[in-house]
Amino acid sequence: MEAVAPRRERDTPRERAFDGPPVSWHTFALYISFLWSDMDAIRYEPIGIIRSPFREPEGTPIQPAATRGTAGTVEVFQRYAEGLKDLDGFSHVILLYHFHEAGPPELEVRPFMDDAKHGVFATRAPARPNPIGLSVVRLLRIDDNVLHVRDVDILDGTPLLDIKPYAPAFDVRGQIRTGWLENRVDRLPEATDDGRFSG
Amino acid sequence: MEAVAPRRERDTPRERAFDGPPVSWHTFALYISFLWSDMDAIRYEPIGIIRSPFREPEGTPIQPAATRGTAGTVEVFQRYAEGLKDLDGFSHVILLYHFHEAGPPELEVRPFMDDAKHGVFATRAPARPNPIGLSVVRLLRIDDNVLHVRDVDILDGTPLLDIKPYAPAFDVRGQIRTGWLENRVDRLPEATDDGRFSG
Repeated sequence: MEAVAPRRERDTPRERAFDGPPVSWHTFALYISFLWSDMDAIRYEPIGIIRSPFREPEGTPIQPAATRGTAGTVEVFQRYAEGLKDLDGFSHVILLYHFHEAGPPELEVRPFMDDAKHGVFATRAPARPNPIGLSVVRLLRIDDNVLHVRDVDILDGTPLLDIKPYAPAFDVRGQIRTGWLENRVDRLPEATDDGRFSG
Repeated sequence: MEAVAPRRERDTPRERAFDGPPVSWHTFALYISFLWSDMDAIRYEPIGIIRSPFREPEGTPIQPAATRGTAGTVEVFQRYAEGLKDLDGFSHVILLYHFHEAGPPELEVRPFMDDAKHGVFATRAPARPNPIGLSVVRLLRIDDNVLHVRDVDILDGTPLLDIKPYAPAFDVRGQIRTGWLENRVDRLPEATDDGRFSG
C-alpha cells in the first residue's frame, strides 16, 4: 500500500472562490436590478429612423389622411436593408414606430378629435401603456435602404420598429362601426397635435 | 502662528474608498452588460394575453381573413381595464402583439403564401427583427376587461402589446398595389402556418 498525500483542499480553485469576501451589496444590487429590468419586459431595437418636416408634436398632423401628402423618408439601418427586397411592389406600407416623445401613459384621454374623454385603447393617442404608433403611408420608391414616402404624420427622428406591406386582403374590413369617431371624422383635416400627449 | 495638525488623509471616507480593492471583474462585467442591455433598447410590457384555439404555430391561420371567423378572447390585465372605455362602439380593433414563438429574425423569408423568397419587410412573417404582430379582428363585445373577438389568427397565450380602434378614415387606402402578393391572395383561405418561423 502506498501512502497517499492528503489533498490540500483550500488550494483548489473552487475552495479559494468560497474563501473570498462575500458578494458586495453593490454587486448584489446590480444583479437584482438587472434581473428585475428583464422581468416581463419585451425588448425591441430601432431598425431605422423616420424623417419628416415635423420637428415637434405641436402642429403635427394626427393621421396620414390629414397630412395632405406630406413627404418624408424612412431610413432603414444598412444592416436591415436586405429585408426590403420586393417591398417596392407595394403602393402602401404600414409603419410601426415608437412614440419617443409621448408623455407618461394615461388610461383615459381626450383625443385630438373629440372633446370628451375616452379609454386610451379606443383612441390613437400617443400616451399609451406601450407607446407604439401605426401609420399607413404611401410608398413612392426605395433607394437602397431609404424609403421615400408620402402621407407622413410622424415626428422627425422617430425610431422605426417595423415595416409591413399593406394588403387590403389582410387589413381592410367591411361593415364597420367606429363608435365615438363616427361623427368626428370630419374634424380630421383640421386636427393637429397640440402637444397634449408630449412628455 | 498656530501649529496646524496635518490631516490624516487616509481616514477620510473618500480616501478609504480609493484604498479598497479595485472593482472586481465580476462587477465590471455586470455593469457593462447592464448598460449594454439598455443601449438603444425600447422596452414594452404585455398589457394582456390573447386566448385562441391555436396552441402551436403549425396549423394556425396566417391572417384574420383566413380564419373563417374563429372566436377568441383578449384578456386585458385588470390594471388597464379603464383604458377600454368606449372601445365597444367599434366593430373592429387592431391588435398589436409579440410573436412570442417566433424564431430568430431572418432578412429574407419564404412566406406562407409564396414559394419565392422576399425581404421580411415585404411579408407578414413572424421571424422579424422586432417580432410585432398586427391583426384586425372583429369585436363582438367587452365584458369588463375581456374582449370577445372573431377572426383570430393568433396563437393562444400571445402577449398583447396594444389595442387600437380600427377606423377606415385612418387605415384604409384606395389605389393599392400589393406586389408579389397580387397573384397569391387566392391562397389565403388554404394557407396555414407550417411552423417554418417557430423558434
